[in-house]
Amino acid sequence: MQLGLIGLGKMGGNMRDRLRAAGHEVVGFDPRPEVTDVDSLASLAAALSAPRVVWVMVPSGDPTRGVVQALSEVLAPGDLVIDGGNSRYTDDAPNAALLDAKGIGYLDCGVSGGIWGKDNGYGLMAGGDAAHVELAMPIFDALRPEGPREEGFAHAGPVGAGHFSKMVHNGIEYGLMQAYAEGFELLSATDLVTDVPAVLQAWSRGTVVRSWLLDLLVLALKDDAKLAKLDDYVDDSGEGRWTIEEAITHAVPLPVISAALFARFASRQDSSPAMRAVAALRQQFGGHAVRAAGPAGAPGEHAGPSSGTGSTQS
Amino acid sequence: MQLGLIGLGKMGGNMRDRLRAAGHEVVGFDPRPEVTDVDSLASLAAALSAPRVVWVMVPSGDPTRGVVQALSEVLAPGDLVIDGGNSRYTDDAPNAALLDAKGIGYLDCGVSGGIWGKDNGYGLMAGGDAAHVELAMPIFDALRPEGPREEGFAHAGPVGAGHFSKMVHNGIEYGLMQAYAEGFELLSATDLVTDVPAVLQAWSRGTVVRSWLLDLLVLALKDDAKLAKLDDYVDDSGEGRWTIEEAITHAVPLPVISAALFARFASRQDSSPAMRAVAALRQQFGGHAVRAAGPAGAPGEHAGPSSGTGSTQS
Amino acid sequence: MQLGLIGLGKMGGNMRDRLRAAGHEVVGFDPRPEVTDVDSLASLAAALSAPRVVWVMVPSGDPTRGVVQALSEVLAPGDLVIDGGNSRYTDDAPNAALLDAKGIGYLDCGVSGGIWGKDNGYGLMAGGDAAHVELAMPIFDALRPEGPREEGFAHAGPVGAGHFSKMVHNGIEYGLMQAYAEGFELLSATDLVTDVPAVLQAWSRGTVVRSWLLDLLVLALKDDAKLAKLDDYVDDSGEGRWTIEEAITHAVPLPVISAALFARFASRQDSSPAMRAVAALRQQFGGHAVRAAGPAGAPGEHAGPSSGTGSTQS
Amino acid sequence: MQLGLIGLGKMGGNMRDRLRAAGHEVVGFDPRPEVTDVDSLASLAAALSAPRVVWVMVPSGDPTRGVVQALSEVLAPGDLVIDGGNSRYTDDAPNAALLDAKGIGYLDCGVSGGIWGKDNGYGLMAGGDAAHVELAMPIFDALRPEGPREEGFAHAGPVGAGHFSKMVHNGIEYGLMQAYAEGFELLSATDLVTDVPAVLQAWSRGTVVRSWLLDLLVLALKDDAKLAKLDDYVDDSGEGRWTIEEAITHAVPLPVISAALFARFASRQDSSPAMRAVAALRQQFGGHAVRAAGPAGAPGEHAGPSSGTGSTQS
Repeated sequence: MQLGLIGLGKMGGNMRDRLRAAGHEVVGFDPRPEVTDVDSLASLAAALSAPRVVWVMVPSGDPTRGVVQALSEVLAPGDLVIDGGNSRYTDDAPNAALLDAKGIGYLDCGVSGGIWGKDNGYGLMAGGDAAHVELAMPIFDALRPEGPREEGFAHAGPVGAGHFSKMVHNGIEYGLMQAYAEGFELLSATDLVTDVPAVLQAWSRGTVVRSWLLDLLVLALKDDAKLAKLDDYVDDSGEGRWTIEEAITHAVPLPVISAALFARFASRQDSSPAMRAVAALRQQFGGHAVRAAGPAGAPGEHAGPSSGTGSTQS
Repeated sequence: MQLGLIGLGKMGGNMRDRLRAAGHEVVGFDPRPEVTDVDSLASLAAALSAPRVVWVMVPSGDPTRGVVQALSEVLAPGDLVIDGGNSRYTDDAPNAALLDAKGIGYLDCGVSGGIWGKDNGYGLMAGGDAAHVELAMPIFDALRPEGPREEGFAHAGPVGAGHFSKMVHNGIEYGLMQAYAEGFELLSATDLVTDVPAVLQAWSRGTVVRSWLLDLLVLALKDDAKLAKLDDYVDDSGEGRWTIEEAITHAVPLPVISAALFARFASRQDSSPAMRAVAALRQQFGGHAVRAAGPAGAPGEHAGPSSGTGSTQS
Repeated sequence: MQLGLIGLGKMGGNMRDRLRAAGHEVVGFDPRPEVTDVDSLASLAAALSAPRVVWVMVPSGDPTRGVVQALSEVLAPGDLVIDGGNSRYTDDAPNAALLDAKGIGYLDCGVSGGIWGKDNGYGLMAGGDAAHVELAMPIFDALRPEGPREEGFAHAGPVGAGHFSKMVHNGIEYGLMQAYAEGFELLSATDLVTDVPAVLQAWSRGTVVRSWLLDLLVLALKDDAKLAKLDDYVDDSGEGRWTIEEAITHAVPLPVISAALFARFASRQDSSPAMRAVAALRQQFGGHAVRAAGPAGAPGEHAGPSSGTGSTQS
Repeated sequence: MQLGLIGLGKMGGNMRDRLRAAGHEVVGFDPRPEVTDVDSLASLAAALSAPRVVWVMVPSGDPTRGVVQALSEVLAPGDLVIDGGNSRYTDDAPNAALLDAKGIGYLDCGVSGGIWGKDNGYGLMAGGDAAHVELAMPIFDALRPEGPREEGFAHAGPVGAGHFSKMVHNGIEYGLMQAYAEGFELLSATDLVTDVPAVLQAWSRGTVVRSWLLDLLVLALKDDAKLAKLDDYVDDSGEGRWTIEEAITHAVPLPVISAALFARFASRQDSSPAMRAVAALRQQFGGHAVRAAGPAGAPGEHAGPSSGTGSTQS
């Protein structure tokens, strides 16, 4: 079938390739002339037969909202817009209402798979009306991995349910990554385990912890057995934050996912004001030695607690 | 090759089956007459040709230490004992020393795979001397999953490294399970996602969070979409605790794995003394309403914070 | 000086008493005829000389916003409204703008002290213009504790800064309470400490952990040494949630305060869906015993990890 | 009364001063000639009349165990040794047994108060026999703060209970410090609060969070309003670790105290292996930008999540 596809970055570009390989006709739009198929959204609309299906794959927030607004002006009643980006689910109802006022349908679709999706397929979670899901099903089928449909696609619920599900997916992802990372650090902290990459690789099959993320960590360690080439600075792209905020709204305890998010925040601090405050307190009550700010001296090995001196007791 | 196998419970029994299916000759011992092949450790030793390889698969702690002690009395120099149970790695050096005094070799081997290992194979992490690893390799090859050896087996380091690796594996497992569980709870807390099991199943392929544990959760939800048949009581079997203790020794921060362990502890409490103390404090400073101990009244839906009344402000 | 005081609940009523005892003239309004001084906001405005200062002490959210709206209609240019309730700081700018359009000033003031404030005085954090702070200073001075002004009152910044500070105060409070509570539980978990209330009381003077919250816990234990009369259900009143949300906005890691909030959420669950999911996973991979939902059997003492059986190994 | 006091560091030296000021006769021993009163433990024993009471105030672990051993050789039946250091409570039973074999009594006593104790008095928690407690009570009374005995001293239980209580005291202390520190960081993260030290000082009286630790933080901020002179490196001296280990033994969930401990561990890392692993994973699945190890570029303000580009979606 025909699909309009807006946003031809790493994700959108790969999806265009995968869809075309599956025999679909994709008309892509991107502001970058070297990748776009058409020169405007109007041209994109003109290039598609009604009812048009247009997939939006641009950064979440204002960019996506802007594209939806623009599409509401070039599409026609009966057409369908799918937001496949990482939008916050709360953007979906307003987007749907805006389009609905023009008779245009709306689906939100969480997409997982990263740069590997082009070859492996993408896991998909859609929110919206069943009729709209049915209309777009050939596209979903081409994007999702080989195998039973239900193992790579779900109609999660009404508008918003797709992005909500994707948000939770990413929250879980934070927790999983941190769990492997903590294990990696502990394995690396002992002299007893002499081949940490081999241990992780031996978990690839048969074990309880086998997973795709584990496979990726094994891959990363092939190149760099101690990950010494990397900085310990970890960004976040919003879904983990939204997951915690949603948990707060619903009074759901998320100790692990929140710990994973906070570890990322901490990883980006050059100096933690909180830990300076703890250092200040220890200095105040116990005369404990503290370090002045400045270029750190080499702290050397320091796994054990500081040997109490009897003089700095709390 | 020949193998003596001590302990024919769910794990040991399955391993005997898998090894025999691979063409090995297994002489199993278990106190239960209905499953054992021989009636004593002495008979087991007599039934094997030197150099004997004997795999111990009994509960960790005293039972394993007892079997190792007993084996030191019936085996001969040049034989090899492998502890495949979930022993704490600190037990390995004493076990190895005890056997070494008699000229008997020792390997520790972490084994992962649960009841599925019989068919899927087990992930294996061994600690000990290379010569001992080589001697037992046909057994390791039969137990591990099909595929490249390094994806199901690692020689992790000297004696203790296998169990250390398995301990960390299980610590990671705690974190992974809790991450999925938190996500499941949050998905279940919103009305927006109308088909939670379908969403989890749609993550089975292509997504970043795909894993064997996810597959198992999907399986569990097939039967019981809200897991309403289960109590929220979660046991622990020691490795998670050891992981935290080891992290403390090495000053490694494990916020996620510790949160997962503590969630299990909390799940087993009928009444949390800590939370009673928090309730008592709120009552003291603010006259906040508290609940008397006793059969709980139906709290109903209570996601939102209690509406402040202006009268109970801290 | 004169003060209009709206909301005569436990907090507002106490504040009226404290202000009158300090010689101020307080005109109180409350919908309950038995406590109010006047029968309407209009009467309250009429009873005060310009420039009027009116303190709002009603539940946060709609009630406070409603009172501010109503006051904007009965007050006059040059008057001043102070919101002393537990409003979210994001309510302050809109409230201030609404009043400013009528020439009426606005301060937000965080108030801490609970039911003890009537006698001890209240800790106060104000946000707004310096001129407004100065106008209301006699009231602040009467409400705050004896002693240097700066130990019970701060002008924290512009409009919103008072409630922001109070929000953080309450977030800290969650962490402090949980820290004491965890310590109480651990002391109570050992047979070694035979007099837990005595130990906590001995911390009252001289120690690093001495505090008012500790004093309150000691008080609570006088009556009920094991807090056995209380349920372990702990409510929250919003500020802890806002603190976490604000931390997420600013990428500030709050592991302790979030753990304290999540412990409250968990304390209110009859059955944790997350922990049922963990139980389900353990059953799936290891055939670990789980409990059916239903009236809990007496679990008895269960501090140690379940003794591994060799048959349920992961 | 007479007291032998071993260890005249900051804590022991201050205690000697406080005890002498209270009229007690203190014979102090320290290896440093410039502070010691006698030149050996034998001289110390000779200088005291039976029944002798000797207080040990040296670093925990081997130093304390060594002194106790040495005392067992110079003291006589009926004498009493008090370990006032920060020993792990598990050292107490062996120490007591060693001395008991010679007819010498033993008390363990947790001491809190830091360098302020000389003037304010020390909070004390003792473990051991009531008769021994009674014998030493004049010393306890002189060391503890003014006021009712039970507010600065507890007989917590049998041998070990004093140090167990002190261990928990310090665990709580970790949680309290981290709670204030997190609040300080969040207050500092907003432009809205223009005078953070003033806000903290305003909490000194009347508020729910008032405490001695708060007073100390206010003091520290007097000098250095942003604590900019300090490094964010925070040591730990063992009791926090023991608290977590003990919680694991008793299956007590300590989410807050453990988070506080792990924050200290993390504060001491130049580069977190765990966070490098998370960065590696993000790079693998999403092509997310990562930072190479090396001198950090100035990251600038980075509170918000990285703006998704549509190309790095998971």
